[in-house]
Amino acid sequence: MDFRPKLIVNLAAIVANWRLLKDRFTGEECGAVVKADAYGLGALPVAKALSGAGCHTFFVATFDEAMELRTALPDVRIVIFHGVAEGETLACVNNRLIPALASRAQIARWQEVAKNHPHAASILHVDTGMARLGLQPDDFFALISEQPDLLPSIRAAAVMSHLACAPDAGHKLNQQQRDMMQQIAAHAPGIPISLCNSGGIFLDASHHFNLARPGCALYGITPVETGKNPMQQVASWQAPILQIRKLETVQSVGYGATQTLPKGSKIITVASGYADGYLRALTGKAAAYLDGYILPLAGRVTMDMLSFDASSVPDDILKTATYLELLGDKNGIRVDDLANQANTIGYEILTRIGNRVVREYQR
Amino acid sequence: MDFRPKLIVNLAAIVANWRLLKDRFTGEECGAVVKADAYGLGALPVAKALSGAGCHTFFVATFDEAMELRTALPDVRIVIFHGVAEGETLACVNNRLIPALASRAQIARWQEVAKNHPHAASILHVDTGMARLGLQPDDFFALISEQPDLLPSIRAAAVMSHLACAPDAGHKLNQQQRDMMQQIAAHAPGIPISLCNSGGIFLDASHHFNLARPGCALYGITPVETGKNPMQQVASWQAPILQIRKLETVQSVGYGATQTLPKGSKIITVASGYADGYLRALTGKAAAYLDGYILPLAGRVTMDMLSFDASSVPDDILKTATYLELLGDKNGIRVDDLANQANTIGYEILTRIGNRVVREYQR
Repeated sequence: MDFRPKLIVNLAAIVANWRLLKDRFTGEECGAVVKADAYGLGALPVAKALSGAGCHTFFVATFDEAMELRTALPDVRIVIFHGVAEGETLACVNNRLIPALASRAQIARWQEVAKNHPHAASILHVDTGMARLGLQPDDFFALISEQPDLLPSIRAAAVMSHLACAPDAGHKLNQQQRDMMQQIAAHAPGIPISLCNSGGIFLDASHHFNLARPGCALYGITPVETGKNPMQQVASWQAPILQIRKLETVQSVGYGATQTLPKGSKIITVASGYADGYLRALTGKAAAYLDGYILPLAGRVTMDMLSFDASSVPDDILKTATYLELLGDKNGIRVDDLANQANTIGYEILTRIGNRVVREYQR
Repeated sequence: MDFRPKLIVNLAAIVANWRLLKDRFTGEECGAVVKADAYGLGALPVAKALSGAGCHTFFVATFDEAMELRTALPDVRIVIFHGVAEGETLACVNNRLIPALASRAQIARWQEVAKNHPHAASILHVDTGMARLGLQPDDFFALISEQPDLLPSIRAAAVMSHLACAPDAGHKLNQQQRDMMQQIAAHAPGIPISLCNSGGIFLDASHHFNLARPGCALYGITPVETGKNPMQQVASWQAPILQIRKLETVQSVGYGATQTLPKGSKIITVASGYADGYLRALTGKAAAYLDGYILPLAGRVTMDMLSFDASSVPDDILKTATYLELLGDKNGIRVDDLANQANTIGYEILTRIGNRVVREYQR
């Protein structure tokens, strides 16, 4: 027994989620987004498991993430959403990394290197509704009219865009982005089009095009705003018990003395806190899970510790308890529940689980 | 030029902050809290800098943090707030780590090992007002009456407790905790008493006792709820510019299309997002800094990217811009400002800055 919190990642559930998405997607290929260390769950184990299941194209945010993945998986396709910086161009091509080119500057840079490297490949990123990253549509149409050989000159493996409102199936922007993508596709004959994130796969097939890139749904986050979450939960956060106490007197709990508990209250303090990514915004909202009991958080979330009110739990269960579950893959607390309590989204919960929380993998 | 965000840590400012705290503290020794990777800034460089300035006692949360620090600094004292788990007892004593013993179980465990190891040392942790970790006072008084040799038997290097409301100088709990600590100290003759965190050092000297353990104030977070922050800012977060665009049409920005900007708006998208610890709660609140200009955040914080409205910035400045400042150590945005905008505390901002943000050190 030690005091290390654990995050137990169920790789079989991630693979099952990928297969469900792949079956639902009507286009040719379903890749996987493993950026931000596979949403905090561990990019290498996750990508290896998915590669073993037949996934061939992986998406990361940064050059460093791509290089780490390349070392572990020499044969897969790796796309970098951030595109390519000046100092990374040659390393990209030499490691067969595929930048998503987002600006005229990046395009010019890649054209230069692609001339002499027949195995260079890129994706052209067009922004159809985020105003974030990618060529604006008018700029794409202007550029392709200035340079009719634009797509061959960058050795385009795909043209991509990103849906802004995919989980909301009724949002009018989905159709607008799809229609714009059809216009763009008309200028890219024979080149795969990639529009769908997780939410897009649950829109009707007219949004699907050729290459999907699901992220959140792989990791158990719901890809649809309404209705039942079709995905399996994949991670369980186990926080070791540092101490169990019965209050000697009525007493205030935690920083700021914001909460008072009666004499005799049972408090369990565990090792995990906001430095481990248990958001401070969960104060007053969240709970832990122990043997069927729900234990409300007591006092404020602190940097390295959390206290829970275990007054409802019988002493004989407390006697043998060693961990509380902060996030569950079966019963108990789901990632979207914890996100709602913190007024955020599941993505932020998972990506910020810190590295003091030891990842363990179930295959 | 690459697309890596940077956190530039000013070690000289951290040392200056430590000296200010040490000068203000009326007790014998001022240590330093470097838990949670020195609040996200890098435990080893920070501890080495402070050790060079004369700091001899360092406080961490976990056994793993202590072991990492021991490798770099063989001669300093290292205290573990989480105490000692069963499986860590011998490794603690062999590496001269000092657990803060929080329960009868931990005390019994340490007594056993301390019998045979004359260089073993521990701190006894009494909880005087947090209801979080440590012996409750009644339990301490009972134990010391059962075992008059309690403190020698654990080779106590100090008795500690933790202030719940120190930044609020007028809070009545401060005096209550101080008074309780005086009663406890009466049972620990000749043993140093440790009560003060950063905030405690700014309370009157009756709260100081012997050994201080400041954390937040070292890292530029204000230790006082009212009045001017006496500490220097220590870190600057530089986010590389991925793309600058001028909107071709009036357009919605970001996920959920929650914000609309007029045609001609200038948008800068940078590499950093909530996966890097830029809290999603900053959406609609925060701003970046460029050459004296304040750029409001545009659209939602996303996982790997942020967009800012740069419409107020002249084109000739944009032409040469390469980074936006998300957090500054001179002008611009202070850690407490960013925390207020996210409705949290500076501690959470710093501890959650992710490892894609490359730490660079100024000595």
